[in-house]
Amino acid sequence: MELKSIIRTIPNFPKDGIMFRDVTTVLQDKDALKFSIDSIQKELNDVEFNIIVAPESRGFIFGMPIAYNMNKSFVPIRKKGKLPYETVEESYDLEYGNSALEVHKDAIKPGDKVVIVDDLIATGGTLEAIIKLVEKLGGEVVKICTLIELPDFNARKRLSKYNILSVITFEGE
Amino acid sequence: MELKSIIRTIPNFPKDGIMFRDVTTVLQDKDALKFSIDSIQKELNDVEFNIIVAPESRGFIFGMPIAYNMNKSFVPIRKKGKLPYETVEESYDLEYGNSALEVHKDAIKPGDKVVIVDDLIATGGTLEAIIKLVEKLGGEVVKICTLIELPDFNARKRLSKYNILSVITFEGE
Repeated sequence: MELKSIIRTIPNFPKDGIMFRDVTTVLQDKDALKFSIDSIQKELNDVEFNIIVAPESRGFIFGMPIAYNMNKSFVPIRKKGKLPYETVEESYDLEYGNSALEVHKDAIKPGDKVVIVDDLIATGGTLEAIIKLVEKLGGEVVKICTLIELPDFNARKRLSKYNILSVITFEGE
Repeated sequence: MELKSIIRTIPNFPKDGIMFRDVTTVLQDKDALKFSIDSIQKELNDVEFNIIVAPESRGFIFGMPIAYNMNKSFVPIRKKGKLPYETVEESYDLEYGNSALEVHKDAIKPGDKVVIVDDLIATGGTLEAIIKLVEKLGGEVVKICTLIELPDFNARKRLSKYNILSVITFEGE
């Protein structure tokens, strides 16, 4: 399946100069939905891990089916103020803006092996903050999986110590 | 499995007087995670539908695994300004505050049969707005599924025309 052709591109959203890659058109197509999840999941068959970590809210969309299918725990990363229990926090920068992320303190323990799932990797700023949260709590990030990668933003250089998988790339377009 | 005992209650979050029911403790437990999804999904075995609709962001957590497992489409409902393509909009009230929700115009078509999935039903205000969005686009809401119901807030009276399933109730507590 040519998943890339199903992703809708919206120029200048949410602001001028951004080519927004819209995954809702993948989710609306039941066969593309299944193929997108399977394409990430097959890369995890030989990976030893016990937790899927994913950021709100599109990370939840791709992370949860994989957690369910592979019988792993799921730990949500949320924007500051959304999680009700004790948290640790990291600020981060986005392709467009900045904010802070949190994770529950009791969600990850030393020795946990974590796979991070998100819909898209651009600069890697969000993922870097998520990695810091996982490592603050003693977890080990064994793999980072995203459906879409924008290599023009050089996340692999920033996150060179980590194992990154992406299913689709949009480069120079 | 006694799923109810695994849900963490946080008093006075996000504001005084609210008993917040925290599902992250269910998600952190891989067996409880699986059981929570299966408990919703088994109620859909005899339901004819083609789309799961779920609101950000906890609705995504419970809706997506079911869409994947049952080979259905998934349509995200998002807060105003988050969806990049043409949308329809509904304002709604919450247990604490108010806001507006959107869905992509091309995500639901006349004749589509929709199951709405969310983590929790309290007043039914959010769900009522989601129903209006689905019906504006010509879809039919055939079932509403939530993990948790707070009957003290009377959503079933407000949504009496609809078929509502909840797995766990917290009443007068």
